[in-house]
Amino acid sequence: METFFNPGSVAVIGASNSPFNLGATICRALNEISSWDGAVFAVNRKAETVHGCPGYAAVTDIPETVDLAVIITPARVVPQFVQQCADKGIRHVIIESSGFSESGEEGKSMQRMIDETARKSGMRIMGPNCLGVLNTRNQFCCFYGIQADDFNTFAQESGNVSYIIQSGGIVVIVLESFTTDVVRANKIVSIGNKSDIDEADMLEYFSRDDSTEVIGMYLENIKDGRKFIEAARRVTKPILAFKVGRTSEGARAAMSHTAGMANNDRIFESACAQGGIIRVNSISELHAMPKMFTHMPPLRGKRIAVFTNSGAFGGITADLLVQAGLEMARLSPETQEKLSRTGQIFNVANPIDLGPALSMQTFLEIFDILLSSDEVDGLLPVPSLWHPMVIDAIVELVKKCRHYGKPAAIYTPNAVHKTVSYRQKYQVPLFESPEEAVRALKVSYQQSCFVAMKDALRSVYDMERCGEHRVAEPMLQEA
Amino acid sequence: METFFNPGSVAVIGASNSPFNLGATICRALNEISSWDGAVFAVNRKAETVHGCPGYAAVTDIPETVDLAVIITPARVVPQFVQQCADKGIRHVIIESSGFSESGEEGKSMQRMIDETARKSGMRIMGPNCLGVLNTRNQFCCFYGIQADDFNTFAQESGNVSYIIQSGGIVVIVLESFTTDVVRANKIVSIGNKSDIDEADMLEYFSRDDSTEVIGMYLENIKDGRKFIEAARRVTKPILAFKVGRTSEGARAAMSHTAGMANNDRIFESACAQGGIIRVNSISELHAMPKMFTHMPPLRGKRIAVFTNSGAFGGITADLLVQAGLEMARLSPETQEKLSRTGQIFNVANPIDLGPALSMQTFLEIFDILLSSDEVDGLLPVPSLWHPMVIDAIVELVKKCRHYGKPAAIYTPNAVHKTVSYRQKYQVPLFESPEEAVRALKVSYQQSCFVAMKDALRSVYDMERCGEHRVAEPMLQEA
Repeated sequence: METFFNPGSVAVIGASNSPFNLGATICRALNEISSWDGAVFAVNRKAETVHGCPGYAAVTDIPETVDLAVIITPARVVPQFVQQCADKGIRHVIIESSGFSESGEEGKSMQRMIDETARKSGMRIMGPNCLGVLNTRNQFCCFYGIQADDFNTFAQESGNVSYIIQSGGIVVIVLESFTTDVVRANKIVSIGNKSDIDEADMLEYFSRDDSTEVIGMYLENIKDGRKFIEAARRVTKPILAFKVGRTSEGARAAMSHTAGMANNDRIFESACAQGGIIRVNSISELHAMPKMFTHMPPLRGKRIAVFTNSGAFGGITADLLVQAGLEMARLSPETQEKLSRTGQIFNVANPIDLGPALSMQTFLEIFDILLSSDEVDGLLPVPSLWHPMVIDAIVELVKKCRHYGKPAAIYTPNAVHKTVSYRQKYQVPLFESPEEAVRALKVSYQQSCFVAMKDALRSVYDMERCGEHRVAEPMLQEA
Repeated sequence: METFFNPGSVAVIGASNSPFNLGATICRALNEISSWDGAVFAVNRKAETVHGCPGYAAVTDIPETVDLAVIITPARVVPQFVQQCADKGIRHVIIESSGFSESGEEGKSMQRMIDETARKSGMRIMGPNCLGVLNTRNQFCCFYGIQADDFNTFAQESGNVSYIIQSGGIVVIVLESFTTDVVRANKIVSIGNKSDIDEADMLEYFSRDDSTEVIGMYLENIKDGRKFIEAARRVTKPILAFKVGRTSEGARAAMSHTAGMANNDRIFESACAQGGIIRVNSISELHAMPKMFTHMPPLRGKRIAVFTNSGAFGGITADLLVQAGLEMARLSPETQEKLSRTGQIFNVANPIDLGPALSMQTFLEIFDILLSSDEVDGLLPVPSLWHPMVIDAIVELVKKCRHYGKPAAIYTPNAVHKTVSYRQKYQVPLFESPEEAVRALKVSYQQSCFVAMKDALRSVYDMERCGEHRVAEPMLQEA
């Protein structure tokens, strides 16, 4: 699998100098924009050089070894190019062309031909009907159509979140959103119709990939439920998954897009519970939630302390926390007494109303009191940014969370464009709404439960393997 | 009520030159920043001039007529100042000080004293524990603590959305968000503990106010359920209301904030249904939804056509529409045939997959076909902004929606900071997520139903009044 993300040489089949040629955009990205230093060959009828990449009429004409072929030609000629790749001994092929299972009988029959060739030659195939791969570590990228601006924006900085995404449109939103967030992408793979490589294979790969801390998934269907659950169970990194098709109308639309079976959504729901996968509710959660894992310790209990200097948000967040199945921490008289000694606080019961004016020192004392208290598992701070000191206090809070091993999901009550710009400027993990902050606490807690249960499950498996015990498999339950 | 928004002269009681004096910020805003041209007097012990406003030791010393008094002193001296206002013959008083019903028995007893004075003298009181009033039409603003930057940002441009808000923190988010949106505020009133003037009084006022097209509310409780429902029923403008306290924890927090009764949330839910009030689910909906009413015709049926060039969003939006109780429009073979003649479209069934490349002409033809079709009540367009032409097409779409009398809730699949900047630059009503766009369609449809039912209710009342009929009152049902 590593070769898909880190090939030494690539042939772009279908790259030519015709106007609007999509293969040419891949040659340009790899040869002229990216700092990736492998060899790129263009394959086209005229054997013409494309953006400096030497041209050949067939992959079999390329004198050097080709690690990876990217095919982006009309669908009807794809099977013959796959055969050529097999003849050349290429073991890794990405088919980006569309027009296969997602578009009727003829497409389905072509996909079967390709599968047959692949099986015979031991070739692994990604796609068809996909966008390809981006690896920010080595700047390898075979997304078709990518422009220089986008390439530089998306691939320049490396992070620790990897994605398995069944659609190119979602890739763009995630990468665009990261430009104003505190996390960055590591590797992204768009698996399209997944005739061969599927979501379970990619989970396995990212589970072992050292630079991946969090795995995100956008799915339109699952190929093999059992394989998917088994793979997910072996992953202890957080897996965030969004699946379309909650309704029959949505499932029908997804089917025409990437050709999957219209899985019953309840099967997916159950797979998430059994595999320990966090199901997210929107595309924006796919890119907003990872920072809770990369920038904060896990939430290990349900008891949350809220503090704010906008009284309204005490009530709003209390509603949201309770509705999410979390709890408002009950602060003892001793803790309340400690809080009231820090300064002029309006209300020391949870939700704590800080009142309008607070010094940096008071903020720091409040953080210590709450984070060190065994009555509190995590924080939901909603401080108004009325003074530059407040953002400095937030920076300190992030450090203190690491120190105490308890998380805070921070929301500053501002318009989203202001929050986004503060987050980018000060590199603190701010959430964009109170709803998002509460979700972050919830998914963090869910992940803690999943990790504990996967550990338990592993012990059971280990015991079984030693022949010591033979027990019924415990079912993982959602938090 | 008009005097609160348009006084000829104002006394700011408690404005002095002491450091951090909040009354002084009001004098400065009115006298040095705002273009409002009424007279401002400062009332303080030393009778000192504040930011150019002549100072007096008591309101009764002011030789001229005072239309409105704004009191911002410690709570314990408020009752005596209210009495002074009565003596001076002032009929309109805003009490911004906190420390009344929301903070214990002593505060409650002071509030009773004030109420008594007001009742005797025929004075109307707004507050206590409130932020005051902003009228963008004449730039009259008595928000305490407002800075020049914020004043210029919030009050400079006038719009048609008025708000009744029980908390200052929410006012800031709404006004900040409007700076990047296509709508602007008209009047904002923060009613705090509402010892006298309440949400029902303000509904009445905004209902008759010509420059108000949409009414937004943030409530922590309702003072008088029956009065509230009666007032709401007479309003045919859209009313969007957010209420905190869905859970007992949230209700408890709200109580300590603005001192209301912890109303059972189901009573509020029922009041919304009976009064024809759209209950919104988040603070962000309070400022995001009004543009659907100011910039688009109403949605009069449930059948929505989706078109996108990111296949994933076909499925995502279909799920969201169905879950919201709306329907995917069924396009007849004739309509599909018309669509397929416009250009190279991937899928002409709803959700329509436009494919990657589309000309302006094709866009315009698709708009006409869908908006003129009697199979479609409204649109959910999700066009990728891959080319500047697309935003031009969106501008045309907004015009065509007005022409055909059907709405579109437009979402461009981008990171939120990009959407926000496009919206601001091109002044088109873009929503920030597919969830938000679907909500906009839903609330528009809900309002259409409410208007129809209020009309029906009015006919029944009219008939009753004429003695022609005596019928049971129909219950308004939520759409």
